[in-house]
Amino acid sequence: MANLDFWFDFASTYSYPAVMRIAPLAATAGVAVRFRPFLLGPIFKAQGWDTSPFNLYPAKGRHMWRDLERLCADHSLPFRRPDPFPQWSLLPARVAQVGLAEASGEESWGEESWGEEFCRSVFRAQFGEGRRIDDIATIGDILAQLGVDGDAVLAAARAAPIKARLRDETQEAQQRGIFGAPSFVTGDGELFWGNDRLERALAWAARGG
Amino acid sequence: MANLDFWFDFASTYSYPAVMRIAPLAATAGVAVRFRPFLLGPIFKAQGWDTSPFNLYPAKGRHMWRDLERLCADHSLPFRRPDPFPQWSLLPARVAQVGLAEASGEESWGEESWGEEFCRSVFRAQFGEGRRIDDIATIGDILAQLGVDGDAVLAAARAAPIKARLRDETQEAQQRGIFGAPSFVTGDGELFWGNDRLERALAWAARGG
Repeated sequence: MANLDFWFDFASTYSYPAVMRIAPLAATAGVAVRFRPFLLGPIFKAQGWDTSPFNLYPAKGRHMWRDLERLCADHSLPFRRPDPFPQWSLLPARVAQVGLAEASGEESWGEESWGEEFCRSVFRAQFGEGRRIDDIATIGDILAQLGVDGDAVLAAARAAPIKARLRDETQEAQQRGIFGAPSFVTGDGELFWGNDRLERALAWAARGG
Repeated sequence: MANLDFWFDFASTYSYPAVMRIAPLAATAGVAVRFRPFLLGPIFKAQGWDTSPFNLYPAKGRHMWRDLERLCADHSLPFRRPDPFPQWSLLPARVAQVGLAEASGEESWGEESWGEEFCRSVFRAQFGEGRRIDDIATIGDILAQLGVDGDAVLAAARAAPIKARLRDETQEAQQRGIFGAPSFVTGDGELFWGNDRLERALAWAARGG
């Protein structure tokens, strides 16, 4: 089956429509998608940025917020601008690694995989409800709703293997030439950047890329 | 009739597919489009950039060239990466102002309007054939092919009214919050940035925006 790596950061605005849209589109295209959350912070830092470019360049930021609002309306996604922005995405990124590691069969915290649904829930909480994703209460609520053992998952998220896994993922993203999120990488190494490239990336993957 | 302002810079890479695609899409959508070439240089300078962000951020630049090549293939547009990049767009921008001023009835150098076709020819020369658009020979060839009096047009392009017009257009772009190209502004002031927003901008305009 054709496959596609889906790289995103939990603080990334345009990753919100991408994470909410990708599963049904991928099913239709016949493409298996792997969720790969990483941290944009170290990559931005290497480019000389200490915060989001949407904060560094106010005109770009104004357009982005309005554009995201329009996109969410078009896709019938709830939208509420988070404050502060960007949020610190380390905690949800580590927790997601726990769920996604389980899905890939490396670990097990329950009978069903909850990694992808956790990712969607975090984005919905942040950009749909204006909740803080760097707040352990938000993450705990989401885990409870997913029916997983929050204490065990949070302990695993803070342990060395998951910390290392997230660092490795971030390093791999940078090595693959990723400079923003969301990004999509096909099996043959084609890089597509941006929610607005999601359909093209799936089509490329489906053609055997 | 619904209308849309189409702002672009002749050196802007993603303005190439936008300028080549907009006329038939606008006709289908029932939207009247006004071509408004301006200079991104002063706007980038105000953001602290002395060249294209695609040069300042190499990973972003690598993705853009590959993405543009893929887009051109999808739209059956010829593509050749120009060297150097970005090119100095002052000369074609001033000449375009002559043609577009004529089209709007302010001036007259011939029986037919040639402004929009000139814009398409400049982009085709630069991104389809790899020609230099800061070379007066390229601009002269294009004017000759369009059947207009090149000497008269070039003289007008260098005269004070056209220089002032281009300065005013660039200033208006900045005042409207434009920070990149291509950009689209609807009658009700909605700003859309990027070739990938062209269809949405037309739809917004057609809905009465």
